[in-house]
Amino acid sequence: MTQLNESLKYFSEHTDDFLRQYQELVRIPSVSTDPEHKADIRAACEFLAAKLRSLGAQHVEIFPTNIHPILFAEIHAEKEGAPTVLIYGHYDVQPVNPIEEWHTPPFEARIDGDYMTARGASDMKGQVMASLAAVESVLAAGPLPVNLKFLYEGEEEIGSPSLESFISTHKELLACDVILNPDSGMLSKDQPTIVYGLRGLLYFEIRVDGPKADLHSGIFGGVVANPANVLADIIARLHNPDGSVAVPGFYDRVLPLTPAEKQRIASVQVEPETLLKLTGSPELYGEAGYTPLERTGARPTLDVNGLYSGFIGEGSKTIIPAYAKAKISCRLVPEQNPDELFELIQAYITSLTPSAVRLTIFKHSGGSAYLADDAPGIEQLAKALGDTWNKPLSYKREGGSVPVTATMLKHLGVKSLLTGFGLPDDRIHSPNEHQHLPTWKLGVQALIRFLLNFDNVH
Amino acid sequence: MTQLNESLKYFSEHTDDFLRQYQELVRIPSVSTDPEHKADIRAACEFLAAKLRSLGAQHVEIFPTNIHPILFAEIHAEKEGAPTVLIYGHYDVQPVNPIEEWHTPPFEARIDGDYMTARGASDMKGQVMASLAAVESVLAAGPLPVNLKFLYEGEEEIGSPSLESFISTHKELLACDVILNPDSGMLSKDQPTIVYGLRGLLYFEIRVDGPKADLHSGIFGGVVANPANVLADIIARLHNPDGSVAVPGFYDRVLPLTPAEKQRIASVQVEPETLLKLTGSPELYGEAGYTPLERTGARPTLDVNGLYSGFIGEGSKTIIPAYAKAKISCRLVPEQNPDELFELIQAYITSLTPSAVRLTIFKHSGGSAYLADDAPGIEQLAKALGDTWNKPLSYKREGGSVPVTATMLKHLGVKSLLTGFGLPDDRIHSPNEHQHLPTWKLGVQALIRFLLNFDNVH
Repeated sequence: MTQLNESLKYFSEHTDDFLRQYQELVRIPSVSTDPEHKADIRAACEFLAAKLRSLGAQHVEIFPTNIHPILFAEIHAEKEGAPTVLIYGHYDVQPVNPIEEWHTPPFEARIDGDYMTARGASDMKGQVMASLAAVESVLAAGPLPVNLKFLYEGEEEIGSPSLESFISTHKELLACDVILNPDSGMLSKDQPTIVYGLRGLLYFEIRVDGPKADLHSGIFGGVVANPANVLADIIARLHNPDGSVAVPGFYDRVLPLTPAEKQRIASVQVEPETLLKLTGSPELYGEAGYTPLERTGARPTLDVNGLYSGFIGEGSKTIIPAYAKAKISCRLVPEQNPDELFELIQAYITSLTPSAVRLTIFKHSGGSAYLADDAPGIEQLAKALGDTWNKPLSYKREGGSVPVTATMLKHLGVKSLLTGFGLPDDRIHSPNEHQHLPTWKLGVQALIRFLLNFDNVH
Repeated sequence: MTQLNESLKYFSEHTDDFLRQYQELVRIPSVSTDPEHKADIRAACEFLAAKLRSLGAQHVEIFPTNIHPILFAEIHAEKEGAPTVLIYGHYDVQPVNPIEEWHTPPFEARIDGDYMTARGASDMKGQVMASLAAVESVLAAGPLPVNLKFLYEGEEEIGSPSLESFISTHKELLACDVILNPDSGMLSKDQPTIVYGLRGLLYFEIRVDGPKADLHSGIFGGVVANPANVLADIIARLHNPDGSVAVPGFYDRVLPLTPAEKQRIASVQVEPETLLKLTGSPELYGEAGYTPLERTGARPTLDVNGLYSGFIGEGSKTIIPAYAKAKISCRLVPEQNPDELFELIQAYITSLTPSAVRLTIFKHSGGSAYLADDAPGIEQLAKALGDTWNKPLSYKREGGSVPVTATMLKHLGVKSLLTGFGLPDDRIHSPNEHQHLPTWKLGVQALIRFLLNFDNVH
């Protein structure tokens, strides 16, 4: 019996244990955006450290940062000269609000039929546990064909502010031949997917201040500028009528799509009906002249993520609000530089703001886009996915951002393999996030194959 | 010693008792916008009923409505054929949020030096208690020269939805010669003021729905319309660049200001510096071609009162919000019809809304504007204010709305006397609302004189 079959057998016999550990991790509410969850973040980190020790890791170390710790671990291969695979992951999750829209408590991790519902079940604790289950299954059936390094951060959902300085100061420690980043997803249950392109991210906040306090709109309506109206006006001018972004210079570095690119994107099977069903929107909408997948994968976008001003409770309150604010993020494509774009946006918005209010703009985070269809290990991954699903592979340019991939390339000189076993309807970042467990199980099998595909003897 | 002097003496001797009763009323958190305060609203109503009984009212009755009760009471004059003065008031208050901006608990009613700080201290529990203190002082010193009727509602801050049907079905009960409505204020400590014009109000809410749930802005940014961006776009188009309202037909019924009107408004002493100091805004702003007081008093306005969409907590969340909503109100001038305007606004906003989102608009409340410089009793009030302050009277057109005045005129055929002893910096509807007590005391003295001015013998 081959190591592959024994590993798969071990996994199928211990699937319930693995699911229990998966639930344990998901039940830790490690919300990185909320300072109140600092201890939970730490707990999630400790949980993974313990798990890695139990796998026999020779080196497990938790590195403190200004915000949330980074976990590093290493498991050596038996034979000399084996390649080194670095597995990246993050153990932090998005906030859960609006809490009232969850059908089960967000950190209960309830398993109901084919799904586990919880914040982080898909993004990305499920993917983290899939990798660890694969490693354990391989180790249980024989020698490890590769050296493994693990890098787990707790700040991905807040833009990984500490990661780059950590990587740049620990190049030796992180040196590797292959990087596996399972923080991506599949196009559908039947489409194992390798993402070869990701958009970058620029996240910023605008605040417009007017009166020193909320004013009676009757007594003062007509004398002062209303910050909420001014903010709406600014946001409205960030787009052109054709759906393109109106910030001067926004597209300057955007490369036109090549016919080959357009063809590759078109080859991905996603019907407009599917997108309507997934989103629940009455109609598709976006930049004129591009297909939906071109817009999500290969074109930059600008979206308001949050708006607040004045009175938003029950009933009515007749005030001119003291201030109004908006959270806004841009998805970027290769060659766009987040810092440069922030300067452009700041200058443009400042030019739009009347002197009757005070404007504040600040940047939350930024990351460059990423393009890689030649990452080392791609054959091993492609074969593993193909053998597991017996379906044609999908190569995809995706709209999401994984800034760490660009950072890794810059400092370690290795392009990341982006895959994962979440599905488009997992509702990540939304209420009732869930993971499709049959897909998760196939994912573990695929990762077992992926690791063993590095074994030349095998 | 005249009844006037004895009444003034009684008030000065019992000022502390009156202030204690005033605090008692203010301490009842009768927030009408919030269903959770239903019992407090009731308690405030009962408090006033008890107070009126203690003044010897022959008839005190609490009328239930669909929301909050209406209180009626009557105190007869001794002599036949005395005129009847109806005193209007409301015992409900605005919400307190943002609660964290209050320096003392909003319902503690702390008296510190010249000020009582509390929600409702100025708008308008202070004015209600001033009237009752005046009535008690007059009664303590002799016969009542007028028949008094009292009408107190608990829904003024939510647009008085029950009041009109009550008034129209109780014309007999409310029949009167003079109506005193102390729900207005003074221009400054030294400017006793009679308001002869008020703007009307139209309050509505817009909601824009897009996706069925918040979406990951990376995966879906570029495929669907973002409700927050769409809402901002709609709001931006409600005004023209010159600050005027862009809704077609909005100004159709607005009468041009006559030179006499302009002159009367100009005669009111309010410096731009004063408005900047009061509001804390960096600059004055509004419809081109009109002075600040013309804009607040004699021109209609449209203001956003509240905005909400998506994620507004700490940190960042990269979503396309499922929906966005705005609370908006218009201040109206005479001849403008709130219902007609709502139709116009609804049609205009609908025409601006792309089919890629779902739009909902609903009306909270509406009331017509009011113009009256010939209200019965105006001589008695003018003399009372003049004798109390020994300062020239200010006649003012005000931006606020008191829809009840229009309703009273329509059903009882009597124009209301609008005055009050709040000041522009009382921060009504804002955190740290307060009442200037020396002004309040002069107010009580003025109301004592007002009542006695109806006594021909005197």
